[in-house]
Amino acid sequence: MKIRVFVSLKDGVLDPQGKAVGHALETLGFSGIGEVRVNRVVDVDVPAKTAADAIAQGEAMARALLANEVIEDFSIEVAE
Amino acid sequence: MKIRVFVSLKDGVLDPQGKAVGHALETLGFSGIGEVRVNRVVDVDVPAKTAADAIAQGEAMARALLANEVIEDFSIEVAE
Repeated sequence: MKIRVFVSLKDGVLDPQGKAVGHALETLGFSGIGEVRVNRVVDVDVPAKTAADAIAQGEAMARALLANEVIEDFSIEVAE
Repeated sequence: MKIRVFVSLKDGVLDPQGKAVGHALETLGFSGIGEVRVNRVVDVDVPAKTAADAIAQGEAMARALLANEVIEDFSIEVAE
């Protein structure tokens, strides 16, 4: 079963990557751009029979590796 | 208006980052994991009045900077 783990910086946490992308877009002529935030989405094929089991495995993976819970939030959905 | 640009590697393109995440998960005891793919999602606040205009700006940004069209696909949605 495929799950999708969406990882994003918590509100208020500075996003240097987003800032860099924003500056680069301005340099390329895209004016008037507001905030830019760069997030990660990790698709994982997990050995689960049910959606609940797949999401539980995803949460364990997110807490163990995929997300830094000090500065990041994560959410999980079953992709297929 | 906020748009969300979803950038993912094309099918068949090797994802070394995904492979590394998969190995790390196995090392942490998550057995039986299949393919892992790591994608980018860039949220951009664009100066657009309509959804169509926002998406058009997003496409131009994706082609100019956010996606490498040789190996990546992108899709855009209006987030708010």
